[in-house]
Amino acid sequence: LMVMDPDNLSVVLHSLKDLRLEQRPIPEPGPNDVLLRMHSVGICGSDVHYWQNGRIGDFVVTKPMVLGHEASGTVVKVGSAVKTCRLVRRIHVHGRVLQNGRYNLSPTIFFCATPPDDGNLSRYYIHSANFCYKLPDNVTFEEGALIEPLSVGIHACRRAGVTLGSIVLICGAGPIGLVSLLVAKAMGASKVVITDLSQERLSMAKKLGADYAVTITKGNAPQALAKNVADMLGAPPQITIECTGVESSIQTAIYATQSGGVVVLVGLGAEMATIPLVNAAVREIDIRGVFRYCNTWPMAIAMLASGKVNVKPLAFETTKQGLGIKVMIKCDKNDQNP
Amino acid sequence: LMVMDPDNLSVVLHSLKDLRLEQRPIPEPGPNDVLLRMHSVGICGSDVHYWQNGRIGDFVVTKPMVLGHEASGTVVKVGSAVKTCRLVRRIHVHGRVLQNGRYNLSPTIFFCATPPDDGNLSRYYIHSANFCYKLPDNVTFEEGALIEPLSVGIHACRRAGVTLGSIVLICGAGPIGLVSLLVAKAMGASKVVITDLSQERLSMAKKLGADYAVTITKGNAPQALAKNVADMLGAPPQITIECTGVESSIQTAIYATQSGGVVVLVGLGAEMATIPLVNAAVREIDIRGVFRYCNTWPMAIAMLASGKVNVKPLAFETTKQGLGIKVMIKCDKNDQNP
Amino acid sequence: LMVMDPDNLSVVLHSLKDLRLEQRPIPEPGPNDVLLRMHSVGICGSDVHYWQNGRIGDFVVTKPMVLGHEASGTVVKVGSAVKTCRLVRRIHVHGRVLQNGRYNLSPTIFFCATPPDDGNLSRYYIHSANFCYKLPDNVTFEEGALIEPLSVGIHACRRAGVTLGSIVLICGAGPIGLVSLLVAKAMGASKVVITDLSQERLSMAKKLGADYAVTITKGNAPQALAKNVADMLGAPPQITIECTGVESSIQTAIYATQSGGVVVLVGLGAEMATIPLVNAAVREIDIRGVFRYCNTWPMAIAMLASGKVNVKPLAFETTKQGLGIKVMIKCDKNDQNP
Amino acid sequence: LMVMDPDNLSVVLHSLKDLRLEQRPIPEPGPNDVLLRMHSVGICGSDVHYWQNGRIGDFVVTKPMVLGHEASGTVVKVGSAVKTCRLVRRIHVHGRVLQNGRYNLSPTIFFCATPPDDGNLSRYYIHSANFCYKLPDNVTFEEGALIEPLSVGIHACRRAGVTLGSIVLICGAGPIGLVSLLVAKAMGASKVVITDLSQERLSMAKKLGADYAVTITKGNAPQALAKNVADMLGAPPQITIECTGVESSIQTAIYATQSGGVVVLVGLGAEMATIPLVNAAVREIDIRGVFRYCNTWPMAIAMLASGKVNVKPLAFETTKQGLGIKVMIKCDKNDQNP
Repeated sequence: LMVMDPDNLSVVLHSLKDLRLEQRPIPEPGPNDVLLRMHSVGICGSDVHYWQNGRIGDFVVTKPMVLGHEASGTVVKVGSAVKTCRLVRRIHVHGRVLQNGRYNLSPTIFFCATPPDDGNLSRYYIHSANFCYKLPDNVTFEEGALIEPLSVGIHACRRAGVTLGSIVLICGAGPIGLVSLLVAKAMGASKVVITDLSQERLSMAKKLGADYAVTITKGNAPQALAKNVADMLGAPPQITIECTGVESSIQTAIYATQSGGVVVLVGLGAEMATIPLVNAAVREIDIRGVFRYCNTWPMAIAMLASGKVNVKPLAFETTKQGLGIKVMIKCDKNDQNP
Repeated sequence: LMVMDPDNLSVVLHSLKDLRLEQRPIPEPGPNDVLLRMHSVGICGSDVHYWQNGRIGDFVVTKPMVLGHEASGTVVKVGSAVKTCRLVRRIHVHGRVLQNGRYNLSPTIFFCATPPDDGNLSRYYIHSANFCYKLPDNVTFEEGALIEPLSVGIHACRRAGVTLGSIVLICGAGPIGLVSLLVAKAMGASKVVITDLSQERLSMAKKLGADYAVTITKGNAPQALAKNVADMLGAPPQITIECTGVESSIQTAIYATQSGGVVVLVGLGAEMATIPLVNAAVREIDIRGVFRYCNTWPMAIAMLASGKVNVKPLAFETTKQGLGIKVMIKCDKNDQNP
Repeated sequence: LMVMDPDNLSVVLHSLKDLRLEQRPIPEPGPNDVLLRMHSVGICGSDVHYWQNGRIGDFVVTKPMVLGHEASGTVVKVGSAVKTCRLVRRIHVHGRVLQNGRYNLSPTIFFCATPPDDGNLSRYYIHSANFCYKLPDNVTFEEGALIEPLSVGIHACRRAGVTLGSIVLICGAGPIGLVSLLVAKAMGASKVVITDLSQERLSMAKKLGADYAVTITKGNAPQALAKNVADMLGAPPQITIECTGVESSIQTAIYATQSGGVVVLVGLGAEMATIPLVNAAVREIDIRGVFRYCNTWPMAIAMLASGKVNVKPLAFETTKQGLGIKVMIKCDKNDQNP
Repeated sequence: LMVMDPDNLSVVLHSLKDLRLEQRPIPEPGPNDVLLRMHSVGICGSDVHYWQNGRIGDFVVTKPMVLGHEASGTVVKVGSAVKTCRLVRRIHVHGRVLQNGRYNLSPTIFFCATPPDDGNLSRYYIHSANFCYKLPDNVTFEEGALIEPLSVGIHACRRAGVTLGSIVLICGAGPIGLVSLLVAKAMGASKVVITDLSQERLSMAKKLGADYAVTITKGNAPQALAKNVADMLGAPPQITIECTGVESSIQTAIYATQSGGVVVLVGLGAEMATIPLVNAAVREIDIRGVFRYCNTWPMAIAMLASGKVNVKPLAFETTKQGLGIKVMIKCDKNDQNP
């Protein structure tokens, strides 16, 4: 195969706020694995959260863990039993063991960079061959690394039932709000309103296709905001995708949604939330959570390959200046192209 | 047609706690209406609530209103334009104007005994011919009057997706909990657990087919209760139908339900509720309200006619002693049979 | 209101092949009706079929009938009971009485230009106010008249379950094949292949967004064609929308579709068809018919208003030369603009 | 563990009509397997079909194959890597490799007694531990062996969408028609009509819960039969489950079903069938095939354990006289009880 550079620099979180850049040995693939030389790895909010807090809910960093799970790379070595995965130039890593149906809800699933499982923000990474997807030639490594956040948007929009002609409110214009926007428009939503505290994020959202943007000010009353949104649209949205996790925003989401509609909770906030549950119940608004995603890879790759969504504006390399919606790290020192 | 007794004694709520039994003129049916001689009318929690509180949410009693909406009777006169509704002996009243699809969510719908619309707890009542359903010969008037609460159970179980083999938790063994139980079993639920504060209600639930009953004590911790339920069943329920509206019970419903499952909110409590929303979201538990019902009549009548559900134990006539799960008033002085 | 020109020239089919252009009195709207001055009316295959055959299936022309049901116009007079419909400039006619749910399947429904009901290819036409939809300002009369065929495409794609990333085969590039193509792409289909005997129609399909076009030759073996389609796509289509009604094309549709997929039958051919039913059954391919459409108007108007689909290339005015995918007649002599 | 009798008598089909009873060595379980001592194995129509025809469609017997796939037994030895499967007394064999979602449609799936894979009509059989289900204590071996045909009924009724109040027509009262009947009633069907040529089979169907039985005579016109069924029910069935594969019966199924309803094809007949496709299409009747089943085991076991269905009348042991709806072979010479 190829001669491998023994350098396997990895970004390792040892414990709360103790992040180290260190060498690790290049691992040897098992019979059903492949060894990947990583190219692009995006930084997710959860990576930052583990670094700053040492935990997310019940998942606690108790031993050193490599970060990173939004990733693409090249297969450089295959296990002895791997048949269907040829030595392709570019690959996307689906960081989980596939199970039946809604595998994201299984308690025993492996997930990159969720304790105790290592992530792939390193030069080399071992992954099960069955969960590697070949990237089409017209999809870049950077776009490949964005399949993971795009999957969150796909899963949210599928759970919401976005379809042709849907009117959608998205609360929050961070990375997940923006991928939800991209996916909602690609699924045929006729009008998408997006809200945020930041004018800059809203400008980006407008560039990515939002029909309306609403600047939030702290202290806005949820019911008043809901009325503003309905007035702007001429009718309440059928679907609201809540991406902030903030209690007042969840309240707004419920008040704003049309009777018989759906609120999808993507953002996570405090464990207990006080919400207008009777209002939601008597108007038969479904409240649906999303946890990561499932069965989204083929759709995400099809969308990128066909040009249905353009994720490129989301990616900002670390060396670039400016508004970092999504920081993308180039792991291969010999190839720093997108 | 028939000679009508001029007596049209009616149960009229004039205002908060001011309930009167008074004569009203027998109304004349319009071209598309029928005049019904009422036989059996059930008393619903909402009737009692209007009486004791003068309002339910935004619906306020501002002028005298006849109570009652769980009703059956006999057509005694038909409007000039009514063709398809023959003079049948027994009829069930579907108290609403039919609209497209989820008509229960329409803001302009007519509903019996919801201000400002009169109910049918009277000797005679006018109703649109299109919304009268003929009762099959093997269905009694009393069963006919129970179609309305049965519809709530059907709507709740349909929104929950109960199907063959479902494991279901029902919180609350009042009338709505009990009809939900009957419907869940008829839809093929393999195990139904029901909870209540009252031992008597739970005994009734066991008679009606509940597989397990859990007596609640005020102050029970929601997570501990959820664990009890799972231990009892060997696995968490896939579906929880919450019929109490009590905050701690809604919390229990969420904790108890299996990941990927559904909590249906039938009971209504305080406008704002504090609930473990992150727990619900990351386990993708859908929270779905129900508001009355829609499109349930043909199914309810089919169930009663085929003997799929036995609602008779629910009905207690006013003259009878004992546990009044559902009080049923006989309006026809010449026919006091079921 | 406006002074009306007494001219109500109408296109009337008296009987098989006996089509006459004749004056009819301008009708007076009933209490719940509006009088429309028609602007644009499209000619549908069914209009031509009635003219050439005097019948479609069980629907027989037994007395003179105005043709036309793809129509838009302006409200010029309103009935005494009409409140919500203001005198708007432009309106679209939904030619049916709305009923609950799948109203298209009701045996008693009124339908424009289906015996015995008159159509609207005339200068003036009476319609129920409830079934008139206001056209947004940025939608032309011609586009408004195309809402009806667009509805067929929407209904077909909804029955097929087209969603983001779907791979779709459309058999036949006539008007219905083309609107199905437009709608499938707007719903997020990643690849659409379309087939036809005519190279010209396929060129139009490519202009409208088809990813691949396959020229059919009479006598092509269905299984070989199915294999060609799969080879071209890299995988079999998940959904096939059959718009020809030709037996061999239906066979191709079944062979071509991926296991677990859907074949939607839009085109109608001979009453009895010989098809590879075991192949469809063991591969669990659903075969779903469509009859007209239901509940499509709001979605169609939202699509046109938001620019999600561009139907303008479909419309050819009678005075224009060239490939007539869809002939559009201008009924208002004072306004011949689109 | 237990001392094993070296006898592994097996029913082996060598080739067309060449069926032999022969000794085979007792196999050794691999790391993830268990060794089962078989108790009850049912004979399926497909076993007989392989014996008499040497093939089913593209599946051809080219080397000796053990028959049997409706089976239950006891784990007597476990592989070195098996952890969760304890040595339970009784077990049911799910004869397939589980895959994501609709695994029954995968071309590479392993299936007992489908060439080239051996079945389990033998004294001992090796199976993957992951696909063994523990039988609850109140479920007999014989019932366990009937889970497989019951699964066909579950899958058919699920594909049909049977729910509370459904009116169902079942064509054919053989084993699959009867399990479909049992499941449809358990799912809440209010009326089930069943048809067959044989009066004896229809009597059995009535005993198992059919509401109506129609004796077919060869040459009955499909449209006349359809009308009979509707007259008997008072309305056409919403769902028809076709279990014969006979062309005229499939035609009856389409004509008989209510507009907007579903025909499920369970029986398989000639590859090409001539059917009234326009009638099905314009009335939007979905035609859905079923291939075996998927994800049915937990539901089937829940049904048996809760007594929701009683499959005992279906099983007839080989030694018994009389109508053999389902022949059940006892493989364990020391335990011939049910």
